[in-house]
Amino acid sequence: MHIRGWTVRAAGLPMVLDDREETPLPGDAIVEVAGCGVCHTDLGFYYEGVPTRHGFPLVLGHEISGVVVGAGAEAQAWLGRKVVVPAVTPCGRCEACRDGRGAICPEQVFPGSDIHGGFATHVRVPARGLCPVPNLEDAAVNRAGLALSDLSVIADAVSTPFQAIRRSGLAAGELAVFVGAGGVGGFGVQIAAALGAAVVAVDVNDARLAAISLHGASLTLRGDLLDTKALKSKIRTFAGERGIPSWRYRIFETSGTPAGQATAFSLLAKGAYLSIVGYTGKKVELHLSSVMAFDATVQGNWACLPELYPEVVDLVLSGKVALSPFVEHRPMATINETFAEIHAQGAPRRVILVPER
Amino acid sequence: MHIRGWTVRAAGLPMVLDDREETPLPGDAIVEVAGCGVCHTDLGFYYEGVPTRHGFPLVLGHEISGVVVGAGAEAQAWLGRKVVVPAVTPCGRCEACRDGRGAICPEQVFPGSDIHGGFATHVRVPARGLCPVPNLEDAAVNRAGLALSDLSVIADAVSTPFQAIRRSGLAAGELAVFVGAGGVGGFGVQIAAALGAAVVAVDVNDARLAAISLHGASLTLRGDLLDTKALKSKIRTFAGERGIPSWRYRIFETSGTPAGQATAFSLLAKGAYLSIVGYTGKKVELHLSSVMAFDATVQGNWACLPELYPEVVDLVLSGKVALSPFVEHRPMATINETFAEIHAQGAPRRVILVPER
Repeated sequence: MHIRGWTVRAAGLPMVLDDREETPLPGDAIVEVAGCGVCHTDLGFYYEGVPTRHGFPLVLGHEISGVVVGAGAEAQAWLGRKVVVPAVTPCGRCEACRDGRGAICPEQVFPGSDIHGGFATHVRVPARGLCPVPNLEDAAVNRAGLALSDLSVIADAVSTPFQAIRRSGLAAGELAVFVGAGGVGGFGVQIAAALGAAVVAVDVNDARLAAISLHGASLTLRGDLLDTKALKSKIRTFAGERGIPSWRYRIFETSGTPAGQATAFSLLAKGAYLSIVGYTGKKVELHLSSVMAFDATVQGNWACLPELYPEVVDLVLSGKVALSPFVEHRPMATINETFAEIHAQGAPRRVILVPER
Repeated sequence: MHIRGWTVRAAGLPMVLDDREETPLPGDAIVEVAGCGVCHTDLGFYYEGVPTRHGFPLVLGHEISGVVVGAGAEAQAWLGRKVVVPAVTPCGRCEACRDGRGAICPEQVFPGSDIHGGFATHVRVPARGLCPVPNLEDAAVNRAGLALSDLSVIADAVSTPFQAIRRSGLAAGELAVFVGAGGVGGFGVQIAAALGAAVVAVDVNDARLAAISLHGASLTLRGDLLDTKALKSKIRTFAGERGIPSWRYRIFETSGTPAGQATAFSLLAKGAYLSIVGYTGKKVELHLSSVMAFDATVQGNWACLPELYPEVVDLVLSGKVALSPFVEHRPMATINETFAEIHAQGAPRRVILVPER
């Protein structure tokens, strides 16, 4: 199959539209891309020297939705299906996968790092992880009235906080604090609120905090303007008013910055839980013994297992997690300007690049 | 009841033998001390300004075994029983306790911090957490031939790593790494080996490593002489030879030092688990995002719930965990010299102070 993809020939150089041919191997699907979201991780690969596993030249992009238009042996049943492509597809066969540890499968496939990604007309991926999309024409299912391209951002920005929240054991009536209310953290706020948690969002950007206060955050705080003591005090008061003890605090670091990590760690309290969802290559100075003194837990979260995707799709289609106010569509041909713009000034909404037909 | 205790009137000043009267309140037991272990935590209170919760003057000491010689209402059944006094006794009634989170009970009682401790003829403690000691005269039970005073060190040095190991989910055939093979870590090595784990001990002291290599550590490494890369490589080789994948690594930080914490954290690998058992007031610089990239878990461990103590007593009496080579008895009147000596040069064996009768 003929594929045209926006190729990074070397980090930071303008991406160029390259042509290639791909043949689906057994178990592979070729997905015609409906949309591909631009993630902080892509900018890390492109601007900050974070290495892709495959190396350049490479097409980036791992938040992909589309239609299966080609399939190898054992994957023919997928032909014609609308799908979300998981950001991470474990192999399903290795020792880690058999132990239920697919997140650390050494054979996992991450489009835009292990293989050519979704900033392209098509992408060739393993069919085994694909998440089928229900009938979007059925208004009873697609209550949010979303297009297939919208669903691309499920494949990281929504699913990653979903798995982190699931793993944290967050339950209704508990406290969820998100440090970083951008692409990932903002959806985290919505998912936690949909579960019935009392949600606090901490960020350095008033516009993001204002937006998320309309979608689940009952308290928004400026992490850069309040010192640790004030921040802790406000959160303790908020929890106290709701009768939530500290061992029901679930804190999510979703900023991927050293300052955010220091803030999130400082919010630990007796019996609390901290999930590290964002990534930064930088170190941070911490009082690690707090974890012992507080009998607390810090857990990392890498992506989301494909088997959890259908629940995430349901949350989004049902409108319990609102996508539309937080995404923006642009023609894929704007990719170089879009990367530069987000790198320079951030993005108020997650950008979905849509290939020209 | 008349009690004579070695009282800290102010941090660092020689402890003096003070007399006091105590009457057991309902639920209280008065334990005649058979032995009281000297812990790193006591030195922290005495020399390093770590605050006790009660403040000085106070009798230190939280590793206590003895005989119940006085009892308040509701605790009469304990009279005459040989017991180990848990270092931490949760209240059993508060919201945290009802949620199974006794370790963070705000009403927990820690002798030698909340109340007068065990460097004394007697100690008054809540009876509810006491661990009954089986008949030490029965050679089938007390296969190790231990004295009641020996069992004092169960109440922290043995029980704390036991709970940390239990919580880590360590199973036979998995890898356990102890960073710090002193009082707590050394017993951790033995417990992990008794569970069938392959055990690595990392320390900065050859004598400690030599001793523990005879009691469960299959590989001993000098953490101060090897750089991180070499240390990781040796541990990976050791695990690889035994077919243990990285998500079955359980690392225990039992040194309570910033250097040990940095080492233990650097040993994290994909899916691994790190338990913070030791305490230091100092900060340490870490690449916290490793927890995310490795889908790893860091969990703190505060003491050991009283309900787990009987299992620990069994491990020790059965000889699966050897106490005798790792403890040393001294008259309690040597307390000031003993503290000074351990503070200055450490102790090759855990010192149990025995009151003069």
